[in-house]
Amino acid sequence: MKLGFLGPKGTFSYQACSEYDKTKDFIEYRTIKEAIYALRNNEVEETIVPIENSLQGGVTETIDALIECDDIYIKKEIILKINHNLIANKQYSFDQIKEVYSHPQALAQCRNYIEKNLKNATINQVSSTALAAKEIKEKDYSACIANKNCVSEYGLTLLDENIQDNNFNQTKFWVLNKKQNEEGNKMSIIFSTKNNPGALYKILGIFYENNINLSKIESRPAKTVLGDYIFLVDIEVNDKIIEVINILQNECKYLKILGKY
Amino acid sequence: MKLGFLGPKGTFSYQACSEYDKTKDFIEYRTIKEAIYALRNNEVEETIVPIENSLQGGVTETIDALIECDDIYIKKEIILKINHNLIANKQYSFDQIKEVYSHPQALAQCRNYIEKNLKNATINQVSSTALAAKEIKEKDYSACIANKNCVSEYGLTLLDENIQDNNFNQTKFWVLNKKQNEEGNKMSIIFSTKNNPGALYKILGIFYENNINLSKIESRPAKTVLGDYIFLVDIEVNDKIIEVINILQNECKYLKILGKY
Repeated sequence: MKLGFLGPKGTFSYQACSEYDKTKDFIEYRTIKEAIYALRNNEVEETIVPIENSLQGGVTETIDALIECDDIYIKKEIILKINHNLIANKQYSFDQIKEVYSHPQALAQCRNYIEKNLKNATINQVSSTALAAKEIKEKDYSACIANKNCVSEYGLTLLDENIQDNNFNQTKFWVLNKKQNEEGNKMSIIFSTKNNPGALYKILGIFYENNINLSKIESRPAKTVLGDYIFLVDIEVNDKIIEVINILQNECKYLKILGKY
Repeated sequence: MKLGFLGPKGTFSYQACSEYDKTKDFIEYRTIKEAIYALRNNEVEETIVPIENSLQGGVTETIDALIECDDIYIKKEIILKINHNLIANKQYSFDQIKEVYSHPQALAQCRNYIEKNLKNATINQVSSTALAAKEIKEKDYSACIANKNCVSEYGLTLLDENIQDNNFNQTKFWVLNKKQNEEGNKMSIIFSTKNNPGALYKILGIFYENNINLSKIESRPAKTVLGDYIFLVDIEVNDKIIEVINILQNECKYLKILGKY
């Protein structure tokens, strides 16, 4: 069975694949969007994508691709503790490093560390932490920020470990598939509100009055004008859920159910 | 009078400075955080920073720096229509371009265009669109995504214009200073909720019951554990506002008033 992920080997998504199910056939994709579209187009049966980091918030590329694709549901969530490491092709001092490569989220998670220690370095964004490791293999005076397993995977040198600005650094991944789960205590929903005063308040009221707890709420711009939003919420399911979804279908301008898990 | 902005010349922040007040002495900073800290440390009297884009949502670096710094208030908001352009040091075809440089938000705003047209290019993040233009000046087969005024500012060639994925592309900037404005119909507030069911619902209820309309709500992770959030809201001020703020002071775990404008 094929499982898509944001490659190459050595990414945090790859680590999430290993923790999820080592027996599956892992298929690499260059971007999160491509990994989700591969599921939509039946190239893989499941795909693993990061959805939220405790420091940076929602992974916008994942949320946007989920809005674009229908009939994709959550099967399971996997939470990883994220430790970032400074890695190069040989030993260097901070002052010698002229370039730093990593994924934008990893760069953001080490922003203070970079500002303090790597003052001489230009910052280069690449599409995954492991690609950054591949990139600096042949580049002297360059470093990457990546998962420690890239040191052995690509034959590199560890310069510094646990360099993230904040130790409450966790990333939540979703295993996605095309079948809506009927079991599970949690459910995720994407919705947008009608454009009238108190619209979000009224929708949160529907959950509150039915004793449905929100464990997460996140806003994304609706990509129309400033001030229009799409909300992603995680809720704790109870026996009123079907009734609540029926009410939401009337109250929301847009509603997508990502299923129970 | 000194006005800080995200430099160098040619950024959208620079354009916002010119539209705000051409008579001020514009002072360049390398990052948004440095521009805000310059105000905190009295190096400048005012600073201009991007706060929200209609496609990408909140500018997390701005929101995080505002949470870190006390006694910084909004003086004015400025909204710019954002047009991105593909620019190089001479004429190239899409296939010839091996590297693309830009600010992460600009790269994200042109994500579909890059995927479709610049298949051979690696993507490099730099700290501003204008820095990207400076970067590619001496680099053959490289392009940047930047404001059109960089073509004349740095003597470059325009390859393609208006390349953003979506034409509802606006960025809102805030002029920040250290004095709390007493006038204005709008107010921005940052708060976090106590950790109990319906906490956000109850806070939105305080606004709703006092006829205070929310024109924006945005969530940011509180940087502690997954599921803890800080909210940034824009409200329309009425004569109940002082009373409402007093109630919020009791109901919120954390509250910061960014002032009227």
